[in-house]
Amino acid sequence: MIDTSQFLADLDRLRQIGTYRTGVHRPTFSPEDMESRRWLVAAMEAVGLEAQIDGIGNVFGRHRGPGPHLLAGSHLETQNQAGWLDGVLGVVAALALARAGLPVDVCAYADEEGHWGDFLGSRSLVGALDEAALDAARNRHDGRPLHEALREVGLAGRERLRLDPGRYKGAFELHIEQGTQLERAGMRIGVVTGIVGIRQWRITITGQQDHTGGTTMAERRDAGLTAVRLLAAVDQEFPGVCAERSVWTTGRILLEPNAPQIIPGRAEITFSFRDLSPEVMDRMEDCLRRVVQESNRRERCPAVLEPIGHTLPSPCDPAMRAALREAAAELCPGAWAEMPSGAIHDSQILARVMPVAMLFVPSIGGISHHWTEDTKREDLALGLEVLAGGARRFLAG
Amino acid sequence: MIDTSQFLADLDRLRQIGTYRTGVHRPTFSPEDMESRRWLVAAMEAVGLEAQIDGIGNVFGRHRGPGPHLLAGSHLETQNQAGWLDGVLGVVAALALARAGLPVDVCAYADEEGHWGDFLGSRSLVGALDEAALDAARNRHDGRPLHEALREVGLAGRERLRLDPGRYKGAFELHIEQGTQLERAGMRIGVVTGIVGIRQWRITITGQQDHTGGTTMAERRDAGLTAVRLLAAVDQEFPGVCAERSVWTTGRILLEPNAPQIIPGRAEITFSFRDLSPEVMDRMEDCLRRVVQESNRRERCPAVLEPIGHTLPSPCDPAMRAALREAAAELCPGAWAEMPSGAIHDSQILARVMPVAMLFVPSIGGISHHWTEDTKREDLALGLEVLAGGARRFLAG
Repeated sequence: MIDTSQFLADLDRLRQIGTYRTGVHRPTFSPEDMESRRWLVAAMEAVGLEAQIDGIGNVFGRHRGPGPHLLAGSHLETQNQAGWLDGVLGVVAALALARAGLPVDVCAYADEEGHWGDFLGSRSLVGALDEAALDAARNRHDGRPLHEALREVGLAGRERLRLDPGRYKGAFELHIEQGTQLERAGMRIGVVTGIVGIRQWRITITGQQDHTGGTTMAERRDAGLTAVRLLAAVDQEFPGVCAERSVWTTGRILLEPNAPQIIPGRAEITFSFRDLSPEVMDRMEDCLRRVVQESNRRERCPAVLEPIGHTLPSPCDPAMRAALREAAAELCPGAWAEMPSGAIHDSQILARVMPVAMLFVPSIGGISHHWTEDTKREDLALGLEVLAGGARRFLAG
Repeated sequence: MIDTSQFLADLDRLRQIGTYRTGVHRPTFSPEDMESRRWLVAAMEAVGLEAQIDGIGNVFGRHRGPGPHLLAGSHLETQNQAGWLDGVLGVVAALALARAGLPVDVCAYADEEGHWGDFLGSRSLVGALDEAALDAARNRHDGRPLHEALREVGLAGRERLRLDPGRYKGAFELHIEQGTQLERAGMRIGVVTGIVGIRQWRITITGQQDHTGGTTMAERRDAGLTAVRLLAAVDQEFPGVCAERSVWTTGRILLEPNAPQIIPGRAEITFSFRDLSPEVMDRMEDCLRRVVQESNRRERCPAVLEPIGHTLPSPCDPAMRAALREAAAELCPGAWAEMPSGAIHDSQILARVMPVAMLFVPSIGGISHHWTEDTKREDLALGLEVLAGGARRFLAG
């Protein structure tokens, strides 16, 4: 049987480590973060797992019995002054599965929140993190080298674990939704169809900086105006090529010199889109390229499009999804839905070497990465029970 | 007769005070600026004017003979590391008129370039600068109080001169164009129709900061997207209401938080337009208000429009313009044109109390406010001769 009381007690316990108002502040390799990792090692041993912290900070608890095995987990560290459940939920739920006797290896993947890099822990586990990347890794806030932090927390020189994909039937991750889809639809469980891919772009537009007074409209090469026209064209054209759940965003616009009475000589745009389907993403990319090409045909300020930081979509495994759907249909009929994950997760890294599936519980108000993040306790407990039901079904399948 | 050699020699002399590469660096009340003011006092006295520096730094040379009188001048200080002609040209040309025996009071209006405020010298002369404004004036670069600077340069406690408008038939100002209209049209002289007015606005758009991954397009309140749509609408609508020489500019866009993967929760736009006609400016303002209103009808992110820093257009005096046209037609037939001034000048302040007119000579490459600013010497000399011819005609008219 699943012990939901102990599961909720474990969540409450971790909320006491690095408490910030009603949330927590546990950046990767901070004293509070290391305290939470040591707590997890002890908790893993208490449920019979063989536990260790590896050379990149992954906390790994190996099941001692026979297979077939599952992998389950998420991350322990948090964004700065963030919520108590983002990541922690999936780790503590995996621990609860092991406690209930399921053949589960439990893992807290290090640094999913990216204080030092980009999925360092899970990439290390699947063999996608080389020494050069480790040498180059710096803290994104203060620029401190990762190696220095690893020395300080006593992890330097330890072996980095590698997963044996042959050991696992699949990897599960329970997580908060970080959106309002479930809440708005009155749903309590989201069975994730896949993790969206992201294609991010820099668009640089070069004009001519000039005085607003002395330069006629006909003479101007206004990089800011070209940027507005280009982004307005994206706004017009993207609905014609996107899918139902596609999103696209201009997060950043930099004009130079960005002064009230000077015509902008340069504009830099950071634009990205997300979808679950590579075909849809290809259509969106084609559309973006056409919009830039058309801008360059019409405008006096040339625009250059550069890709930066693309990730592939990671569909969840059909059999694992089916098992989670059946469990949800039994435990909360009419109160679950299928949905993509718009946010990124360690599961997309694990998907490179084994089948993965994710399960969401609602985020109150859709809030995450903020200390007010929360989920109803009954939804947390239900999430664990659906996860356990899905895992049992999948193992039996 | 006009002594163009002495005029060019005077320009060359002032270029030696605060030389910066091929330009000059003479911010208002700097040692170099004060040296140029003292040089001017001596030069005024040498041509028979009664000269003084007043309590705000205006250098004023009063004609000793009978009227009717003209006022002529411009400014001596420069932007930082700027050109040798911007302002200086009009002062030295006015001095040349006095030297030629014309009944001209010559003035170098203090701080047109705005190191300490907004047209401090000319506003003081027309009675539009009160003590409270002086008390509040600070250096725009380092925040030093104006009173402190006036004490240091020995001007504190001196009387500030007031113009007697009844003394003058009108005020002339020769200036570099600060644009490329004349150069591109192959013209050597521009007879200014008037100085454009400026209406400047802040548009603040309030949305909801959110994660790009977890928030569907339908749920978003993207302040940056609303800004793009609003500015695209301005780009569409303004050509239908503007006049031939209207200009409009979005110089500044600030998104918050302006991060690649976060939906902007706030956008702030600085937008301005310029024209010579109050009616055209009213039409542009009506259009802007309609665009904002329409944005607020359609969009989920409210936009608030606030005026900041409006100036009125200042038409040049028809009789003075006619006199300058006749002189230009005689001295450079086919090589002069009428044009508005898109940039601001002391003449727009003087226009509050007397008729004004301005004359432009070409700026090579349209460059100003930069040390590479320049004008051909023959164009400088022609500018002086057209100014003198126009002034004589106007006095005789």
